[in-house]
Amino acid sequence: MYPETFEGFSVTSHENWSDLKKTEFKPKTFEDHDVDIVIEACGVCGSDLHTITGGWGTQNLPLCVGHEIIGKVIKAGPKVTLCKVGDRVGVGAQIGACLECKVCKDDNENYCPHMIHTYASPYPDGTIAQGGYSSHIRAHEYFTFPIPEEMDSAVAAPLMCAGLTVFGPMHRAKVGPGMKVAVLGIGGLGHLGLQFARALGAEVYALSHSPHKKDDAIKCGAQHFIVTSEPDWYKPWQYTFDFILNTADVTHTFNMVEYISTLNINGTFHNVGLPDEPLPEMRAFHFLHNAASITGSHIGSRPEMLRMLKVATEKDVKPWVETIQIGEEGCKEALERLKKNKVHFRFTFTGYDKAFPNRITSA
Amino acid sequence: MYPETFEGFSVTSHENWSDLKKTEFKPKTFEDHDVDIVIEACGVCGSDLHTITGGWGTQNLPLCVGHEIIGKVIKAGPKVTLCKVGDRVGVGAQIGACLECKVCKDDNENYCPHMIHTYASPYPDGTIAQGGYSSHIRAHEYFTFPIPEEMDSAVAAPLMCAGLTVFGPMHRAKVGPGMKVAVLGIGGLGHLGLQFARALGAEVYALSHSPHKKDDAIKCGAQHFIVTSEPDWYKPWQYTFDFILNTADVTHTFNMVEYISTLNINGTFHNVGLPDEPLPEMRAFHFLHNAASITGSHIGSRPEMLRMLKVATEKDVKPWVETIQIGEEGCKEALERLKKNKVHFRFTFTGYDKAFPNRITSA
Repeated sequence: MYPETFEGFSVTSHENWSDLKKTEFKPKTFEDHDVDIVIEACGVCGSDLHTITGGWGTQNLPLCVGHEIIGKVIKAGPKVTLCKVGDRVGVGAQIGACLECKVCKDDNENYCPHMIHTYASPYPDGTIAQGGYSSHIRAHEYFTFPIPEEMDSAVAAPLMCAGLTVFGPMHRAKVGPGMKVAVLGIGGLGHLGLQFARALGAEVYALSHSPHKKDDAIKCGAQHFIVTSEPDWYKPWQYTFDFILNTADVTHTFNMVEYISTLNINGTFHNVGLPDEPLPEMRAFHFLHNAASITGSHIGSRPEMLRMLKVATEKDVKPWVETIQIGEEGCKEALERLKKNKVHFRFTFTGYDKAFPNRITSA
Repeated sequence: MYPETFEGFSVTSHENWSDLKKTEFKPKTFEDHDVDIVIEACGVCGSDLHTITGGWGTQNLPLCVGHEIIGKVIKAGPKVTLCKVGDRVGVGAQIGACLECKVCKDDNENYCPHMIHTYASPYPDGTIAQGGYSSHIRAHEYFTFPIPEEMDSAVAAPLMCAGLTVFGPMHRAKVGPGMKVAVLGIGGLGHLGLQFARALGAEVYALSHSPHKKDDAIKCGAQHFIVTSEPDWYKPWQYTFDFILNTADVTHTFNMVEYISTLNINGTFHNVGLPDEPLPEMRAFHFLHNAASITGSHIGSRPEMLRMLKVATEKDVKPWVETIQIGEEGCKEALERLKKNKVHFRFTFTGYDKAFPNRITSA
């Protein structure tokens, strides 16, 4: 019988954020544009950690997180045209939008005021969205994306959030040949930022606090490596970068004036990391040196996701993934190691059939 | 005999910043690309006030400020080609740059690391540049600009800094038809921001704390007027503006989240005001709503100055000017009234022949 409820590994208190328990939850009401997906793989994103620890605010618990989801469509609503039963699709950090407002119609649905995040967001029917550490997910078709055949599910998973998060802003900033792009922070986001910046044709600089990241950065496509913990590190790089992609989670500790001084005239310091803490104090004066911009973004749009998957396929952009068996034990390990930055560079949960042995896998 | 020294009204202490005294000073060494200008008019800029009060830091005193200068060339170095003796020219807030670095060669000399400001900057020969509350100014030809014949000197003066400061960023942001531009703060900069935004073809919104500014804003070209001191003022304007030109000197008192929420996706909040105080605290999260940018700029380049003068002439952009006789009394009045915001909207000092009766007016 087709399931009324899904199962997932959920956090039940912010204090014990790594003790996930298997829970049942009722998905949103199935509507005409919805699909149900049986999950094969789900990446572990920094957002999951910020959410379950309460760093981004108190949540409705229990909550099942996870928004780098790959799986197979097992049921499709009568109006679904963008995928079909049997398709392997991905779901990222967004699972709904009105798709009718000016923002959505301009392909900016990732900024729709009625946006629904893949977990922790309320649906209009009152259901709280639950993420991909789970047996299944119900999604609006617009937020499901065909996964290229040549991509392994475990490797594809981190592209759904981390990949789009770094690709989206570089695509909008028209990163390409002739541009000097610095990726700041070489981790789950940064190692993909380097690969995409290189894939887009930019001259790529890796900026890291740690000299030990050099080999990895080079393997990810960096042509230059700069250690930002050295005194006066920024001085040789004044007016250099057209675009800095800041993936760091410790921006509050930065001397922003130093970082900004490395931007070319009208260059951009683009935050995709979302630390719990505020940005360092800035003054209007700090922008006078080179007319730098500070900005940020939220994932990307559907066209950007499709474009990102195409570029990743054509240019062989690949998240570096350690797979972990989904389950209470695996969740604990992945989340605690991520908290300590002991990941190289991304976890993907797999083994869903084992963790959910009785789940329905066809409608 | 050609003068070895110039005369000007100078501030001698930050404490008594409105008690200017007539002093003599020695200009920089005359070089091949330099011209000497006998001054006819000089605007009073907010920068003058920030400088003489010490708000932007302690200065070498005595100091003669003023960087909205109109006058006639009375001497030109042997390599000068951009103007000639007898020409009426303007000098703005910048009077030197290396003109050789990549930044300069890209028409970004207003960001040259070797930039020399029109006053308070050291020249390579050790001289401290002195501004336009003075009999004459010595300037590199590249930083002198032909003033269109139809412009009165007193009216043209504020264009040299205020005009360029608001025009430069709008020109770089490609402000034009189809764009919604908000000008925040209706004062010396803002009343020109409105006029130029309209001249460039944008749909123009004036944002002011004070409902009393409405009539002036409309006269300056605003098609909409929004009072930002009303509760929830920002709510009807979510996702509206492509570009906000922030001319306010009180940005530290703003709720930035409210202002930023009125920007369209990928819109820009551009600071041209330079308050003594830091910007309000920002978080990476604040950019997620609409991928807004915060940026700023420093005046504009020579091509932008020439373009600005052309647009002003063609579209009849005119600073609203109250002229004041240059002198110890006039300086005191203008600066004290500016400090209290009692100006509508810009002062220009005139009557230079009277204040400097014995000055040389030809070489």
